[in-house]
Amino acid sequence: MAQAADPPRQELLRRMNMATGGTSALVAMRKELTAHLRDEPALKSLDGDLKHLFASWFNRGFLELRRIDWQSPAALLDKLIAYEAVHEIQGWDDLRRRLAPDRRCFAFFHPALPGEPLIFVEVALVQGLAGAVQPLLVQDGDDDAARQRAQRADTAIFYSISNCQDGLRGVSFGNFLIKQVVEELKAELPHLTRFSTLSPVPGFRRWLTGALADAGEAETAALAELKTDGWWRDASRSEALRPWLMRHCATYLTRQVSSKPPIDPVARFHLGNGARLERINWLGNAAPRGIEESFGIMVNYLYDHGTIEANHETFAHDGTVVRSSDVDALLVARQRRESSASI
Amino acid sequence: MAQAADPPRQELLRRMNMATGGTSALVAMRKELTAHLRDEPALKSLDGDLKHLFASWFNRGFLELRRIDWQSPAALLDKLIAYEAVHEIQGWDDLRRRLAPDRRCFAFFHPALPGEPLIFVEVALVQGLAGAVQPLLVQDGDDDAARQRAQRADTAIFYSISNCQDGLRGVSFGNFLIKQVVEELKAELPHLTRFSTLSPVPGFRRWLTGALADAGEAETAALAELKTDGWWRDASRSEALRPWLMRHCATYLTRQVSSKPPIDPVARFHLGNGARLERINWLGNAAPRGIEESFGIMVNYLYDHGTIEANHETFAHDGTVVRSSDVDALLVARQRRESSASI
Amino acid sequence: MAQAADPPRQELLRRMNMATGGTSALVAMRKELTAHLRDEPALKSLDGDLKHLFASWFNRGFLELRRIDWQSPAALLDKLIAYEAVHEIQGWDDLRRRLAPDRRCFAFFHPALPGEPLIFVEVALVQGLAGAVQPLLVQDGDDDAARQRAQRADTAIFYSISNCQDGLRGVSFGNFLIKQVVEELKAELPHLTRFSTLSPVPGFRRWLTGALADAGEAETAALAELKTDGWWRDASRSEALRPWLMRHCATYLTRQVSSKPPIDPVARFHLGNGARLERINWLGNAAPRGIEESFGIMVNYLYDHGTIEANHETFAHDGTVVRSSDVDALLVARQRRESSASI
Amino acid sequence: MAQAADPPRQELLRRMNMATGGTSALVAMRKELTAHLRDEPALKSLDGDLKHLFASWFNRGFLELRRIDWQSPAALLDKLIAYEAVHEIQGWDDLRRRLAPDRRCFAFFHPALPGEPLIFVEVALVQGLAGAVQPLLVQDGDDDAARQRAQRADTAIFYSISNCQDGLRGVSFGNFLIKQVVEELKAELPHLTRFSTLSPVPGFRRWLTGALADAGEAETAALAELKTDGWWRDASRSEALRPWLMRHCATYLTRQVSSKPPIDPVARFHLGNGARLERINWLGNAAPRGIEESFGIMVNYLYDHGTIEANHETFAHDGTVVRSSDVDALLVARQRRESSASI
Repeated sequence: MAQAADPPRQELLRRMNMATGGTSALVAMRKELTAHLRDEPALKSLDGDLKHLFASWFNRGFLELRRIDWQSPAALLDKLIAYEAVHEIQGWDDLRRRLAPDRRCFAFFHPALPGEPLIFVEVALVQGLAGAVQPLLVQDGDDDAARQRAQRADTAIFYSISNCQDGLRGVSFGNFLIKQVVEELKAELPHLTRFSTLSPVPGFRRWLTGALADAGEAETAALAELKTDGWWRDASRSEALRPWLMRHCATYLTRQVSSKPPIDPVARFHLGNGARLERINWLGNAAPRGIEESFGIMVNYLYDHGTIEANHETFAHDGTVVRSSDVDALLVARQRRESSASI
Repeated sequence: MAQAADPPRQELLRRMNMATGGTSALVAMRKELTAHLRDEPALKSLDGDLKHLFASWFNRGFLELRRIDWQSPAALLDKLIAYEAVHEIQGWDDLRRRLAPDRRCFAFFHPALPGEPLIFVEVALVQGLAGAVQPLLVQDGDDDAARQRAQRADTAIFYSISNCQDGLRGVSFGNFLIKQVVEELKAELPHLTRFSTLSPVPGFRRWLTGALADAGEAETAALAELKTDGWWRDASRSEALRPWLMRHCATYLTRQVSSKPPIDPVARFHLGNGARLERINWLGNAAPRGIEESFGIMVNYLYDHGTIEANHETFAHDGTVVRSSDVDALLVARQRRESSASI
Repeated sequence: MAQAADPPRQELLRRMNMATGGTSALVAMRKELTAHLRDEPALKSLDGDLKHLFASWFNRGFLELRRIDWQSPAALLDKLIAYEAVHEIQGWDDLRRRLAPDRRCFAFFHPALPGEPLIFVEVALVQGLAGAVQPLLVQDGDDDAARQRAQRADTAIFYSISNCQDGLRGVSFGNFLIKQVVEELKAELPHLTRFSTLSPVPGFRRWLTGALADAGEAETAALAELKTDGWWRDASRSEALRPWLMRHCATYLTRQVSSKPPIDPVARFHLGNGARLERINWLGNAAPRGIEESFGIMVNYLYDHGTIEANHETFAHDGTVVRSSDVDALLVARQRRESSASI
Repeated sequence: MAQAADPPRQELLRRMNMATGGTSALVAMRKELTAHLRDEPALKSLDGDLKHLFASWFNRGFLELRRIDWQSPAALLDKLIAYEAVHEIQGWDDLRRRLAPDRRCFAFFHPALPGEPLIFVEVALVQGLAGAVQPLLVQDGDDDAARQRAQRADTAIFYSISNCQDGLRGVSFGNFLIKQVVEELKAELPHLTRFSTLSPVPGFRRWLTGALADAGEAETAALAELKTDGWWRDASRSEALRPWLMRHCATYLTRQVSSKPPIDPVARFHLGNGARLERINWLGNAAPRGIEESFGIMVNYLYDHGTIEANHETFAHDGTVVRSSDVDALLVARQRRESSASI
C-alpha cells in the first residue's frame, strides 16, 4: 500500500534531484513556495511532498558535523553573518570575536549542499553558569588570553542556534546538533563539566499581558510600568519589578505542555530534548529584542548526560517540566505570595 | 494518504540510519536478508522497505563519480579485485594492467559509504571498434606506450560493469554511470568519437538449446558439435558453425522485448538505455564462461549521443531493437537461408 | 674551499631550522634583526647568512602558487589586508571587491610556512589597457556582471604586488610570480591577449625636484604650482601642467640604468624582468600617495611573451629601456620643445 | 668569504631547480653520477655540490612524516616493495601483512617530491622484546586479532629502515625518523613502554674470519663448521657453537669506535643516535642473508627517552658503547673463559 500511495509527484521530484545542483534547486523551490502557501492551498501537498523527501534525504546519518573557525572559507563565514537569527552578528570584527579561541562554532552540512550550513550553534567556554548574554558577545582581542580562558573553562554555554535553510523548514536538526557538539567538546576539553544553553523566552511578554488582562490594579500598574522606556536601566525601578517578574516567568515556563496558550517554543524544544530548566536569569539580555520579548529575562536549559533520557521521558509522558530547585524556589515564593495576597 | 501509508517500519529504519555507520549496517542487513527471502516470505516486506529507502537515499543526485587509478588507495583497489563480476581480475599485476594509462576506471560512491564503490566500469581506449575482449585484458607493461595509445585512440570500449553491493540489489546505477563516464571521457579526450560496450550474451546458449529442441537433424547435429570440447580452437570446425551461430544470435538479440522467453538481460539493459545493437562478434570471448554462455560471441552496444534519446523511445514504445546495418545483414542472410531451406 | 668557507653559523642556523616551526622562527628573527642592523654592524654577517640560507630554501622550485579568492580561509584573507603595500585594502568589503569574479589574486607559499603568503599579486580583467587605478578598486557588487566582464576581458592588469615577509627581504619572488600568473591566466582565459601592469612611479617627484633645482623661472613656477593643494582637480590648471610633466616623466623613466640618481625602482624591476615601458598615464592615481610620489602619473609595463627575452637581454646588456612608440612620441615632443627653448 | 667561495656551479644547480620537476631531475642526476665517480674523478666536485645543496634543501624542517598503510595509494605501496632493503617484500600479500593493524610504517616526504618516500621504517607492535625477525614477517590474516594485539602491545620493534633515494646518498634522515616515529607511537598508543630495533650485524662474519685467521685449532675447526650447510637447523651442532659465537659477537659489537677494522655500520648508526646495545639474539634471522652476514645473530638497540642524550654523549666523547647487563654478562663469560684458556 505504501508503494501504491507513493505519489507520482514524489517520483518526479526524485528525478529532478538527479540533475546537477538538483538538491539545492529543490530546497530553493520549497523556500519559494512558503510565501504562496496561504494564498494557494493547492501548493500544500507539493510542500508536504518536499518535506517528506527532505526528511528522508537529510537523515541525520547523512549529515556531517564540521567546526567553523577563522580558518574557514570567507564565503562560509559570510553566511554565518547572514543566517545568525538570535543575536545578530555586526560584521567581520564581531564575527571574529565569536570565533575566538574561547568560543566554538559547529554546523551540520549535507554532501549535496557543499559550503551551505544547515544549522549552526555558537558556544562560549566560561567558568560558571553564564546568566547574561552581552558579556559573551564582547571579548578582548587577545587570542592568547582567550586560549587560557578556554583551558580554565568548566562550562560550555550554547548561546545561539540558527537554522539556515528556509526550504528545510520542519526538518529538525537542532536536537542532534546539540548532543553531538556536547560529545565533540567533551573529547576536546575533558575538564568541561557543564553543558547549558543561555536561551531567550520569546513568548513571555505576550503570555503575561494576556494572563493579567483582567487582573487587579497592582498588576495593571506593573504592566504599565513595564511599557515605559528604560525601566531596566534604573536600579530601583527594576529591582521593584524583579521578584514579581521572576515569579511569573517561572510560572510561565513550568506550565504543562498541553496548556493554552501553548508553552514557550524554545522551552518546548529544549525540554523535549531532555534538558532541565536550570535557572531563570534577571536581565540576561538587555538588548531591545530581549526587553521586548521577555523583559530581559533569559533562561539556562541544562543538558546533563546522566538525566537527559529520563527528563525526556518525563516530559514526553505527561508534560511535566523537570526543573532545578532554584526554579522551584521561585514557584514556592509565588505560592507564598499568593496566599499572602498581594503582588 | 502517502503519509498514512508510510509504514512505521520505514520510520524505524530511518532512525537506525541516524547512528554512526547506520547506512552501512542497513545495506549489510539487506544483503543478509537475501538468503532468507525464499524461506521466510515475511521478510519480503522488510526487503521492500529497505529497497524503497535505498532508492531514495542513493538517488543519483547524491552519488559522486570518481576515477580510480593506480594512485587510489590499495584498500579500494582490493575491492575492485573482489567485486569484478564480468572478467575476473587475477591479482595485483592484472589489476595494474587494467588501470594502465590507456585504460579508465570510474565508480560511483555515496558519502555515507566512504571507500565503498557502488558500481564501477572499466574502459579501454583503442582504435576502432574492439570485437574481442582478451586483447583488452593483456597489455605490455610500458606506461609510455600506453599513454601514446590513449592519445591516438578514437574509441572508448566499456568492457566490464560490476555492481558491488548486494544490499543495493534492484537500485539501478548503471545507466547513469555509463552516460556520465561518456561525458568525462569526452572532456578529457576530445578526439574520442565512439563510445561502445563490448558485452556478453549470457542467455544465448540457453535460448538456442530451447528453440531448437525439436528442430531437424542438421540443427541437432550442430548442437551436438557445440558440446564437444575445443571446437572453437579448430578453425575448420568453428568456421563451419560461424554463419549459423551468428545468424541465430542476431535473431536472439532482435526479438521483441515482450517475447517469451524474455530477451537477453544485458541487451535489455543497454537497449533500454538507448544504445544501439551495433555489431555481433565471432569468438569475442574464448574464455570458458564466454564459450559456455554464448559460444564465445560478444556484442557491441553503441552509445551515440545524437540518437540515444530516440533509440530509448523506440525501444520503450514497442520494444523494437534499434540495430546497425551489419546486424540487419545477418538477419537477411537468415531469411534468405530460410527460404532456401537448409541450415 | 666552499665547504671550508661554509660558516659554522650557517650550520647552526640549519640545525635551528630542524625544530618544529623553525623556518618561521628564523624568518621572524631576520625581521627582528633589521631594526638593529644600523646600530650593530656585527649583526650584518648574521643577516647575510640568513639571507643566503633563505635564498636556497625559498628556491622557486619549492614555492607553490595558489589562487586566493572568497573561498580562502578568513585567516589568510586577513593577512592580505595587513600586507597589501600598494593600494591599501579598506576592510572586508573592499577585500571582497578585489576578489570579485573579474579579479584574480595569486600568491606564492612555501610548505614550511603554511597559511603564510610570501608575495601576492592582484589582477583586474578588463577590456583595453587600463590607465587609472581608482576604477579598478571600485566595483558594483553584482557577481554575475563581474563574471561576464571576465568573459569579455582581453587584458589582465597587474595593479598591485606586495611582498609579505620582511624577514625574506632581498630574496626575490616577483619576477617568477608575474610570469607564472600570466601562464595560469592564459590557461584559464584563452581570450586574454594582453598582460600589463599598472604601476606607480615612486621616484618621479624627488627626481624632478632635484633635476630642476637650478632651472629657470618657468620651471620654478611650475614646481611651485605643483605644491598647491588640489591642482589636479582643477581641469585648466592640470591640463596646463600635463604636457610638461608627461615629457619629464618619459625622460625620467628612459634614462640609462646606470644614471645618477638611480632609475626608478619599480621601472628597474619590470624592465629587468623583460617588460616594455608601454604607456605613461596622466592622473592614473589621484589618491594622496599617487599625487605625492608622481603627481598622479602611473605607468603600464607590458609583459609580452614574444619579446620578453629580447627586452631583458637589451636592458641587461646596456641598460637601454625598451619602450612603445607612444613613449617615444613624448620624448620627441620634449626634444622639439627643447630645441624651441621654453618649458 | 663564504659568498665568494660559493661555486658558480651551485648557482647553476639552484637555477635548474627552479624548473618544474627540477628537484626530482637533480636527485636523479646525482644517482646517475654515482656509477661514474670512480672512473671520472672530475665529477666528484659536482657530486659534492649536489650533496651540499641537498643537505640544505632536505633539511629536516622541510620533511613531512606520513604514516603509510593499506589506505595509501597503490603507486606509493609499489615503491615500498621496490625500496625495501633489509627484509625483502615478496609481493602484495606480503606487503599487506606488513601493513596489518599491529604494524606501523612511516616515511619522510619532501614537498618537491610528492609521492616519493625518502626513507621509511617498518614497526611491529608486540609484547616483550622480540629477538627473531621471521615471526614478525608472518602474520595471520585476521585484522581484528591484529588490532587486539596492537592494543595489548608494550613494545615497538623497528625491524626495517630503508633509504629510498640513491641520489640523496650521504644526506642523513634515519636518526630523525626513528625519534619522530617514537613520538608518534607514544601519542597514539600510550601503553607502549619500550622502543627498540631488531637489527642485523652485517660485518660480524667478515670480522670474525679476519680476527681468527691465525688462531688455534679449535677456532679453525669452529669456523670450518660454520661453513657447512644447515648447521643452524641441527640443534646439537648449533647449540655447541652458540656460546662461542655469542661471546665473539659481544666482543665485536663493543669494540671502541676507533678500532680497526671499523665497528659495525648498523651499530655505529644506532649507538651514534644514543641507543643502547640491549640484547644479542641467537638465530634471530635464519634467512640466507642473516646466516651469511652474522651466523643468524640479530641485535636489539634500545631507544630509551631518558638516557638517549647521555648515551649519545658518551659514545661521541670516547667511543664507549653503552650496553645492558645482559651484554656485559656475555663479555664477562668471555673473560672468564679466556683466563681459563680454551675456546
